[in-house]
This record gives sequence, structure tokens and C-alpha cells, in this order.
Amino acid sequence: MKLEVVTIGTELLLGQIIDTNAAELGRALAGAGVEVVRHVSVADRPAAIRAAVAEALDRTGFVLTTGGLGPTRDDITKREVAGLFGKPLELDAAVLRSLEERFHRLGRTMPAVNRTQAEVPAGATVLPNPRGTAPGLWVEDRGRVVVMLPGVPSEMRGLLAEEVLPRLAQRNPGTVVRSRTVRTTGIAESALAERVGAIEAEIAPLTLAYLPSVEGVELRVTAWGLRADDAERRLAAAATQLRARAAEHCYGEDGTDLAAVVLNQLRARNARLVVAESCTGGLVSGRITAVPGASDVFIGGVVAYDNVVKSGMLDVAPELLEQHGAVSEPVVAAMAEGVQRQFAVDAAIAVTGIAGPTGGTPEKPVGTVWMAARHASETRALQRIFPGDRGEIRARAAQAALDLLRRLLAGGGQQ
Amino acid sequence: MKLEVVTIGTELLLGQIIDTNAAELGRALAGAGVEVVRHVSVADRPAAIRAAVAEALDRTGFVLTTGGLGPTRDDITKREVAGLFGKPLELDAAVLRSLEERFHRLGRTMPAVNRTQAEVPAGATVLPNPRGTAPGLWVEDRGRVVVMLPGVPSEMRGLLAEEVLPRLAQRNPGTVVRSRTVRTTGIAESALAERVGAIEAEIAPLTLAYLPSVEGVELRVTAWGLRADDAERRLAAAATQLRARAAEHCYGEDGTDLAAVVLNQLRARNARLVVAESCTGGLVSGRITAVPGASDVFIGGVVAYDNVVKSGMLDVAPELLEQHGAVSEPVVAAMAEGVQRQFAVDAAIAVTGIAGPTGGTPEKPVGTVWMAARHASETRALQRIFPGDRGEIRARAAQAALDLLRRLLAGGGQQ
Repeated sequence: MKLEVVTIGTELLLGQIIDTNAAELGRALAGAGVEVVRHVSVADRPAAIRAAVAEALDRTGFVLTTGGLGPTRDDITKREVAGLFGKPLELDAAVLRSLEERFHRLGRTMPAVNRTQAEVPAGATVLPNPRGTAPGLWVEDRGRVVVMLPGVPSEMRGLLAEEVLPRLAQRNPGTVVRSRTVRTTGIAESALAERVGAIEAEIAPLTLAYLPSVEGVELRVTAWGLRADDAERRLAAAATQLRARAAEHCYGEDGTDLAAVVLNQLRARNARLVVAESCTGGLVSGRITAVPGASDVFIGGVVAYDNVVKSGMLDVAPELLEQHGAVSEPVVAAMAEGVQRQFAVDAAIAVTGIAGPTGGTPEKPVGTVWMAARHASETRALQRIFPGDRGEIRARAAQAALDLLRRLLAGGGQQ
Repeated sequence: MKLEVVTIGTELLLGQIIDTNAAELGRALAGAGVEVVRHVSVADRPAAIRAAVAEALDRTGFVLTTGGLGPTRDDITKREVAGLFGKPLELDAAVLRSLEERFHRLGRTMPAVNRTQAEVPAGATVLPNPRGTAPGLWVEDRGRVVVMLPGVPSEMRGLLAEEVLPRLAQRNPGTVVRSRTVRTTGIAESALAERVGAIEAEIAPLTLAYLPSVEGVELRVTAWGLRADDAERRLAAAATQLRARAAEHCYGEDGTDLAAVVLNQLRARNARLVVAESCTGGLVSGRITAVPGASDVFIGGVVAYDNVVKSGMLDVAPELLEQHGAVSEPVVAAMAEGVQRQFAVDAAIAVTGIAGPTGGTPEKPVGTVWMAARHASETRALQRIFPGDRGEIRARAAQAALDLLRRLLAGGGQQ
């Protein structure tokens, strides 16, 4: 089963917000065996919306839209789709009532502007939206379907899971589009490609893609239009091959976050973790605490942005800072030891570097980062010079620092 | 001037990566007076790429693509576009030489797979890409233009700024598409809409959009196809009106980050800042240190994830924790005072809450967060119950904690 996605919003084309809905729809629909064959974004303009939806309907007969349904957006999507199907807009009493109740619960009377949100194309199925004021709409006529969802991500997500996917599941003829991803870090795309070699023929009809990001390179294999059990079997075999070839650079699959991997390694040892970070300024702790349940392993950390904190709270000797500079192997090792001692725990991560845009020197250019991982009495330190802007350098440093501890705990794989 | 953007990558349609390139292109092109009238995403499939580029060329005559140029992707975009223009691919000696030199600098010999990257459609202009191996390509014939850029964001960004925008500037007939954004936080979209009122007629021909996110609601005004000076004058007037109506909820314009605003407020007082955070686990420090030059104001912080850190490093009395719980007004106030004393500085932010998915109770449901801002001897504390998942709750809490200090320093606007 195939459909097209049309995301509506001038701000998307102006690039003033990033279109996360398109990605989220693609992921959820693929999981349900529905292939998004094209995604189009158009502005909040009636003619543009109508043209994009009409063309997509002509190509695939099934279109899912997001956006253009909110109270401040003049409901233009609904009006254009109704026009395309030759249906009038009618006031839906149930929608109006639930809108009024929602405002009542919040202790307010409903502004008149919200009343148009209760109008729906004649014959449309209303998809209730408990998270917001604009309901979703499912319009179907002579085999052509347009499903309209609001653009607010949390509302879109709820309607998709609760209303749209169950209806699509009933239509699916039994094949799925499914992927598996092998995640690597600490190795460049071309080096990884050489290690993996010419695997495409072996894994066919699955396809393989290399996806580099600041967290590393992902190897994604995809099964297209196979039966679910066949797809799962082939994907499992391909993932096993890819993991073997990526070897120590592989830290997990699919959505696995490196921070969760490290937390699991420590949990298995009943060890507790602390972090001391300078240039990453809280990002390593942020990555760790983004993992639900981190609190049984992660105690806390120190953001030692100023040298006064490095010496005052982490016991880094001022002589080390003076002699080697804050971005150096002796200092990062002293930070890891200091924070471990301060919190009296088993494991520690430390990071110090130059994230830019200023602060670089010929010897230590912007992007120079020293990282240390410590477990019991063993410290491993690593210097890298990361490319990219301040944000990328910080994100790469956080990932590499977590990876350093992963490799130390795994007992091998020095970078 | 108008063009269409085609982003290429199966992973985009499967939603396995978010298409940040589309947003970045839209923003940069709008700033250069070029309107992106449509954005299409298609899979890494020759027929899909050719159809999307051909249709876009028919509609607007000018297409910009990203993706499908990397060494592991079989260069399919280049091949399809060459076919569309009826041009053969030819080995470009200069591109081959620069590829070989790049590998030489990295101390490696060039894998054969990279050699096809030196092939270009006959007559194409090569856009040098110092950040990666795939150059950009500009193919132009009888008034139709296709510009191909790599999909790696940092490479795309560099080529756009250095090679594409200067060429587009020469073609622009003198009008621009330009926006200004007034950023608000701590007020809901519908409440903000009532404050702003029916301003659309007053600001016409500019258009207004409300853009809610975890950081607050942005008010965006856009001028379409006006002369640059006229657009600037009208946008400045509209932004002034919107700021006045948003009043204390407005913290800045355009890309202004709230953390940068707070840093500037503190810098003007010669004050220094520290942070103590529990449920946000480093995100508040991360927001602050993402701002270049934060180091003259921000000293550091403590991630007090475990209660042992709250009492041990922040001097929060164990009785307070026992009596009121970690998520309470007395504890958040004690955290702010403790971290301020510990680092001996003027200003402090503290956050403690329940980010979920577990840990909620009927009295303190998931999403309950206490925040405190402290300056000199004045503390302001605020409780909020944030909607959303763990990530959204943490992001909203970080923004609200920064906003609390902003309002305290501004001397008014209690939420």
C-alpha cells in the first residue's frame, strides 16, 4: 500500500521550522506496511494546497496532509479538500460540543474564531483530537482518500496512532516496508564502507544505505513490500552480517542510544556514573538523563566551565592547568579522577575542549577536544579534532566521550 | 524569483532522518529573495528522482536538489539529471585531482568507489566542496536550471553559502521574501492570539503566522516579493506592534535564544551565573553553553540527579527532602541558594521535577516541575505541570527556568 504526504505551512518552505511531522509520519507508516512514495510541502495558500493534493491524489489515490487546520490559520486545508471532492462544509454538532467542553474545562469561553473548527466536509469521518482543538478528518469518495491531520506534532502523533494507523491496518494486503539499523560510531563512512565491502548482492532484495550524522554512521537495511515474517527473517540475517563487519565500532541497533548502552553496561556491574564536562557544558549529562530510568546509575555531574570550578570542585591542580592548559591530557584525566573521588563512585566521564567559534590556536585549533573515561582505577584518554560548527563539535564530543567509556567497559577496541 | 527543492533519500520518506536540509535551504533562499514554492522528497530510486525533477522543472524551471551524490549512494541524482538534459557524464580531471589530493592529505589512497564522483554531466559547472568528496553541480540549458548539492548538511550549507547564493543574487530582479519573528514564551497560542487581536488588516500585505513549540509561541510576519527597503520598513513596524502587544511575554526576535537574552541581562550587571538541575539533567547548562561567549557569565553547574548530590553538594537539608519531597518549592529554593553559595556568585537557576514516564503520583503527576531563579538575595520560584513526553517536559522546563530568571532580572512580569 502506497500514499503521499502533503505537509502544509509557509513556515516549512521558509525553513523557519523543521518538518519533523514528515519524518514521524514516514516512520510510523512504514512500520504499518504503508510506503510513503512522495512527500510534498506547500505554503498556506489555497491554490498551492489544492494543486498539491489533487496531483498526489491522481498519482496514488491516497493522501495524508498535516497543517492548515489550526484556529489561527483559517482552516484552509479543510476548505480546499472539501472543494476538491465537491462537498460543502457543514457544522458538526458533536465537534462543536466537544470544543465548547474543552474551553469550559480550561475555565474559558470559546472564542468565535474556534467555531469554524467545528465545520467538516459533508460525509467526512471526524477523528477526535483530545490534545487540541482541531479534529482530524478522513474524507473518502470513490476510492480516493484524503486524511487531514493538524500540524502540531503532539496532536498529529496522537491522531496517527489512535485513529489513522488502525484504519490503515484494515486495508493492508499483508506486506510491509520494514527497516533495521546497525549503529556505529568512531569510524568514518568511507572506512566503514571498505570494512562492510560489497554486501548488496548478498542481502538482496533488501537495500542498504549509509547514513552519517554527528553520532556516527548508521547502516540501514530495508525490506520493501515483503510479508512480515519474511522481512523480519531477512532483516535479522542482514543485521547480523553488518554487525559482524562493523565489529567494535557497532554499539547497537535501531533507536538504541549510546547513552543507554553505557548505562546498561554500568548497571550490569552495579556501578554508578558521574560526569565532569567543560566544553560540552551539560550535554553529556543531558544525553544520559534523556534515558528513562537513568537515575539508578547516574548520580550527577559537574559542569566545570570556568577553570575555578575545575580546580575548586574537581581538585584539578592549578599547576596542571597552567602548565598544560585546560584542554590537555593531564587535565582531562585529573577531571575524571577528581569527579570520581568527589562523588565516590565507580565510573566517570570527563570532557574539555575548544568548541569555538573563538579560542582556537595553531596548536589547539577549534574542534580540539580531550575526553577521558574512568572505571575503578583505570583511565583512558583520547584526543580528537572534530569538524563542524560549535553545535556539531559539542554533539560529536558528547558522543565520543560516551563511546570512550563504552569501549573501556567492553575491554577492548582502543580507538 | 521562484524555485523548487527536491530532497532525495529513502531515509527521508521512511522518516529515519529528519529533513533539516529543506528547512535550511528555505531559510537561506528566502533571505536571498528566492521563494521556495514547493518542496518534494523522493526515494533513492532513479525513476522517482527523474519524475520529481522533471515535474518541478516544468512548473518553475529552476530546481535545487540535495542528496544522492555520496560515494556509497551510486551517484544516482547526477545520472538522472544528466539524462533529463540529454547530456553524457564525463570524467572531470580537476575534480578527480582534488579528490585524490583530499585522500592524500588524510594519508590514504582513494578507494575506486570514489572515482565516479569525478564524473559530471557535460557542460555542467562544478561547485567545489572543500568539506567533502562530492562536489556540487550546476546544470543549465535553455533557461532551465538544476543545481545538485550533497545531502550531508555541513557540505550542503557550505556550497549553498559559497557557490549557490552568490550566483542566485546575480539573477534576482530586486525583490525579496523576508520575515521577522517575535518570540514569546510563558503564554499559550490562543491567549496570545487574543492579546494580539485582529492585526492582519493593519499589517497587510505582510502575513502573520503563529508558530507554537516547546520554547513558546513565535509570531512571524512575512513580506512577499517586495523591494528590500520597503520590506524592511514594513517588517520593522509590524514587529514593533507585535512586541508591544506581546508585552512581557516577548523575549526577543528572530533567532534570539532565551539563554542568550539571560546571559546579556547578567553581563550588563557584571553578574555571574550558576545552575543546579535535577530533572533537566544538564539541559539548562547545555542551553547556556550553546551560546558562544557564555564563559564570561556562566561559571558552571551541578547536575544533582540523585538526592545525595542535592544534600551533599548543594547543602539542601535532608529534612526538607524528607518532609516536602525532592519536587517541591522549599527544595528548589534551597537548591538555588545552595549552588549560589557554593560557587559564590550573583545569580542561580534551579530545577527539580518529574520528567516521566514513571515517578508520577496523583499529587505530583508526570510533568510537575519546580523552578527557581535567584539574583542577589531574591528568589522567585514557580511550579508548572508541563504536557508532553519526557523530552518535551525537559525542554519546556529548561525554557521556563531560563524565563523565570529573565522575568526576575527584568523586574516585573510574575507569571
